[in-house]
Amino acid sequence: MGGGKQVDIGVDDISLKDLSSKLEEFAKARNWEKYHSPRNLLLAMVGEVGELSEIFQWRGEVEKGLPDWEESDKEHLGEELSDVLLYLIRLADICGINLPDAATKKLLKNSIKYPPQLL
Amino acid sequence: MGGGKQVDIGVDDISLKDLSSKLEEFAKARNWEKYHSPRNLLLAMVGEVGELSEIFQWRGEVEKGLPDWEESDKEHLGEELSDVLLYLIRLADICGINLPDAATKKLLKNSIKYPPQLL
Amino acid sequence: MGGGKQVDIGVDDISLKDLSSKLEEFAKARNWEKYHSPRNLLLAMVGEVGELSEIFQWRGEVEKGLPDWEESDKEHLGEELSDVLLYLIRLADICGINLPDAATKKLLKNSIKYPPQLL
Amino acid sequence: MGGGKQVDIGVDDISLKDLSSKLEEFAKARNWEKYHSPRNLLLAMVGEVGELSEIFQWRGEVEKGLPDWEESDKEHLGEELSDVLLYLIRLADICGINLPDAATKKLLKNSIKYPPQLL
Repeated sequence: MGGGKQVDIGVDDISLKDLSSKLEEFAKARNWEKYHSPRNLLLAMVGEVGELSEIFQWRGEVEKGLPDWEESDKEHLGEELSDVLLYLIRLADICGINLPDAATKKLLKNSIKYPPQLL
Repeated sequence: MGGGKQVDIGVDDISLKDLSSKLEEFAKARNWEKYHSPRNLLLAMVGEVGELSEIFQWRGEVEKGLPDWEESDKEHLGEELSDVLLYLIRLADICGINLPDAATKKLLKNSIKYPPQLL
Repeated sequence: MGGGKQVDIGVDDISLKDLSSKLEEFAKARNWEKYHSPRNLLLAMVGEVGELSEIFQWRGEVEKGLPDWEESDKEHLGEELSDVLLYLIRLADICGINLPDAATKKLLKNSIKYPPQLL
Repeated sequence: MGGGKQVDIGVDDISLKDLSSKLEEFAKARNWEKYHSPRNLLLAMVGEVGELSEIFQWRGEVEKGLPDWEESDKEHLGEELSDVLLYLIRLADICGINLPDAATKKLLKNSIKYPPQLL
């Protein structure tokens, strides 16, 4: 970094399996497993999708990278995206779905369904 | 495995960053980046949340692990969960949100907001 | 009513067109028409669907008529159902869709698609 | 109309109560009441919200009145809006919520919360 300014970008990456494990521990430590049925988690996720949509609802079209957004709005957006992600991973786990495998296969399936364009 | 039957469980894990990179390549190779505006991706994600909900809509309450489901229904579920995940990751990326960091921070925030129960 | 107790059940009915007119007046009187673009209204509706889902998220299966619910929870539910309804009607209006006609035709279409069962 | 061309605009209006009655008859005639639990209907509605969102997902911002849309796309939109409406009304009914009253009260509450602007 040669003495230059160092920016803490925070955690750089995390895996689906790590998130899944953390969510399981979280629920166990709070005795919340009894609430984590598939449809409860699905509706909780839909609730978070609603909160995510509210952030975008009155803005008209929004530019990539959100150049005009306040830092606090971006932080709020990161939280709502995370809430959807965490419920989604937990839902997959409770349903016994191997999400890393399913997502990898879906990407492959999509790449066959929509072949790259020859430019 | 001592000569026994080996079961291919498929991909065991994948990171958010890897998925994000694959989605970016996917869009570039198809010249689809022009469609990937924040609100387009958000609405596409809401569409997939709808397809996910349709899987659960007429079943009444569903048991953890989906013991009574056909294998084909579980596969369909894995695909819809993946579709939500992939649009979510792409949405975060297009908005310039570091999702691994945001999700990690949200987990920490939740663990402070809801302290573990003393049993 | 023969001198018996009279219960105010409130407004008994209202038409889609009346609600549409009231919503148009409401927006005009507040100079909010500029915010009422189709996708803004759609995302606002998704936001309300999320709030509606939150009411049901941790309850497990719920009995018809909500016999065990607090009166305040039912009132909250009525408000969230209304919010979805109002944005839906406004969205149809802004899109130039005749919702009373479309809904009537959809009912007819469904009744042909799914003929009544001979019992 | 003075001998001019008459356009059939179809059904001009319908009330929430009429739609609710028709939906109840519809379910009874098909012996579908057993499927119409609150959370089943809610998830069915979320499914339709997803289909509605799919219509708008890749279009970028959309003009009021949908001037550039094909007639068939508008018809499709009318159907999806109707599907959301019909499940919403049925959900309210199954929950024992008087939706005409709730919607009227919500409008009144909003008009107090957001007073008209003095221009």
